[in-house]
Amino acid sequence: MVNCKMQKLGEERSVIREIFEYGNKRKQEIGADKVFDFSLGNPSVPSPDAVNAEAIRLLGSMPSVALHGYTSAAGAPDVREAVADYIRTAFGVPMSASLIYMTCGAAASLTITLNALCEAGDEFIVISPYFPEYRVFIEQAGGTVVEVPANEGFHLDVAAIGNAITPHTKAILLNSPNNPTGAVYTQKELAALSAILVQKNEGRASKIVLISDEPYRELTYGAQVPYLMALYPHTVVCYSFSKSLSLAGERIGYIAVSPQCENAEALFAAVCGAGRAQGYVCAPSLFQRVTAKCLGQSGDIAAYRENRDLLYNALVQDGFTCIPPEGAFYLFMKSPEPDAKAFCERAKKYELLLVPSDSFGVEGYVRISYCVARETIEGSLPAFRLLAKEYGL
Amino acid sequence: MVNCKMQKLGEERSVIREIFEYGNKRKQEIGADKVFDFSLGNPSVPSPDAVNAEAIRLLGSMPSVALHGYTSAAGAPDVREAVADYIRTAFGVPMSASLIYMTCGAAASLTITLNALCEAGDEFIVISPYFPEYRVFIEQAGGTVVEVPANEGFHLDVAAIGNAITPHTKAILLNSPNNPTGAVYTQKELAALSAILVQKNEGRASKIVLISDEPYRELTYGAQVPYLMALYPHTVVCYSFSKSLSLAGERIGYIAVSPQCENAEALFAAVCGAGRAQGYVCAPSLFQRVTAKCLGQSGDIAAYRENRDLLYNALVQDGFTCIPPEGAFYLFMKSPEPDAKAFCERAKKYELLLVPSDSFGVEGYVRISYCVARETIEGSLPAFRLLAKEYGL
Repeated sequence: MVNCKMQKLGEERSVIREIFEYGNKRKQEIGADKVFDFSLGNPSVPSPDAVNAEAIRLLGSMPSVALHGYTSAAGAPDVREAVADYIRTAFGVPMSASLIYMTCGAAASLTITLNALCEAGDEFIVISPYFPEYRVFIEQAGGTVVEVPANEGFHLDVAAIGNAITPHTKAILLNSPNNPTGAVYTQKELAALSAILVQKNEGRASKIVLISDEPYRELTYGAQVPYLMALYPHTVVCYSFSKSLSLAGERIGYIAVSPQCENAEALFAAVCGAGRAQGYVCAPSLFQRVTAKCLGQSGDIAAYRENRDLLYNALVQDGFTCIPPEGAFYLFMKSPEPDAKAFCERAKKYELLLVPSDSFGVEGYVRISYCVARETIEGSLPAFRLLAKEYGL
Repeated sequence: MVNCKMQKLGEERSVIREIFEYGNKRKQEIGADKVFDFSLGNPSVPSPDAVNAEAIRLLGSMPSVALHGYTSAAGAPDVREAVADYIRTAFGVPMSASLIYMTCGAAASLTITLNALCEAGDEFIVISPYFPEYRVFIEQAGGTVVEVPANEGFHLDVAAIGNAITPHTKAILLNSPNNPTGAVYTQKELAALSAILVQKNEGRASKIVLISDEPYRELTYGAQVPYLMALYPHTVVCYSFSKSLSLAGERIGYIAVSPQCENAEALFAAVCGAGRAQGYVCAPSLFQRVTAKCLGQSGDIAAYRENRDLLYNALVQDGFTCIPPEGAFYLFMKSPEPDAKAFCERAKKYELLLVPSDSFGVEGYVRISYCVARETIEGSLPAFRLLAKEYGL
């Protein structure tokens, strides 16, 4: 009676959610302070004060009908203007409000962009390891996932990407700062990628698109996050305020189509059409207006940095091999045994809840989300030490 | 380079939006008080006071990380519990929180339900006239639209629905109170429909589903709106708070799967899967909590009733033929000439902006959205009188 593919997607809870639910159960059994849940990427620092202040101001001053009524499908005109203005100023690239489409968060930005682009037979390149929902979103849009492994340091293997490009390649999906590795791609490697794409585009009927999934843009520890539109013309930025403003549950973000994109207006129309077909009437109106007033702001990144330093240093000292995170709030750690799932099961004995890398498209690693209370990190360190000892590290 | 179907969907703005944009332009040219825009269904009364009060209370008291963080994909547990409890109490039907899925509004409720149900070859029956996006949503899910005309009074032609059922019929999509006619289906006609469906279900491998699209449930002028779950087991309610709480822009609603539905759990899993595939991570978290505290409330329906009475009485006195609206905030009026588009063009000369019925799947009518300021109605009456005279009414 129901669509089996959808039923399966609904029944197979994501591995991450599965661990999270186990953690909740375990916390009820033995106490919340004794379980070290590093599964979810739910921001652990409050929104900047400006967020609630602006929300309360709007609720108290703007007429209800205007504040809570429909906005245009692409967003309130002044909000789109503010976002375009921010992009022009902050990143020094041309941008027009007419190419900004406000969305219900990163997943909406991605699914709408993929549905807008995808035609029968299209391939989408992702860099493994990658956020598991990329596969769900690409396949739902009718596309084929082409995995290209990152290099040893989890940065771009530009030559490998070049070799993976076929006449069917529609787009390359990049995520920097990266989930799950914390890598931040450099200006140099992105310029090299751009050069290869420009070369591959010669004589192609339609140009290869770069989709830049940027929910972690503001969360870096010194690294610069180059703006892809400045490096490559056929770029679509999928942005979300979920992590920067700690608004993951409010579902608010935007799609920005580069004016230098081939057929930018047609692509933008397709974005509007895909949003319409998927049932996105408009992005939540109160938070459209709130985020337009908080562009470029972020929560307490220093707290994430402290967590990162504390955890990274302790784990390295314990003998684990970790990728130093340059951004986002994930630590990618090598499993001391080849089977990361088995390692995660052993970690569970110490109430350490880690996510095996298999669902991210690579084997032998675990993802540790350090967007948690500092006490959770502190409390977990003896457990990690015992775990290291068990492996003779 | 882009998906042509999506580009076309994005470029062909809906007729309603087209008229609305024309109205905005015209208002700038001759003054807002001289243009009588009856195109959009955007609530014109403020949200009940409890809405902003609860939002401000939550923003001021609930920890930011908990308030603005991800909820479970189906919604915050206490919110789902509150909705299930409300349904049990208000409508006297069994309901479990485990069958409530919070959504980003009515369009999300519908697209997710359709994607959850639709398999290759499925047919979905709609009652014409019907909300134009139904066709977009059904076709995007891969289904085929089967139109069954309403009867003369724009109520259900139960026999015609029965005759339209084939082995491919997956579901029937009902909308009561109705957009665009204002009809509210009676207990008697719904019971008759249920009886036919039960009969048709005999020997069918999978049962026919009733999808009840209910954004106008609370907006009636005396008529009772029977709860479909009490009349037919295989029912999915697609609810939205957009109109009742005047929250159209905030995108908040829910799907309720009847526990008596065949394979209710599998259907609910498919709902979760469809939401996931479409990029709906969770419904906006602040407004999940706000609406859970305002269940069953509504804005100032008396204002809509005054608008309805003023407009309906004047138009009938002018000689127009109108369907008396039993609910929602739309007046469906017969065009005095067969071509409703031509009539709307003539009305434009008097700055009256009406929506021709063609895009709703019937000819010869116009939809007049009376969710406007009372002054707009009062100001429009002389214009309607002149228009009537032009037709010799």
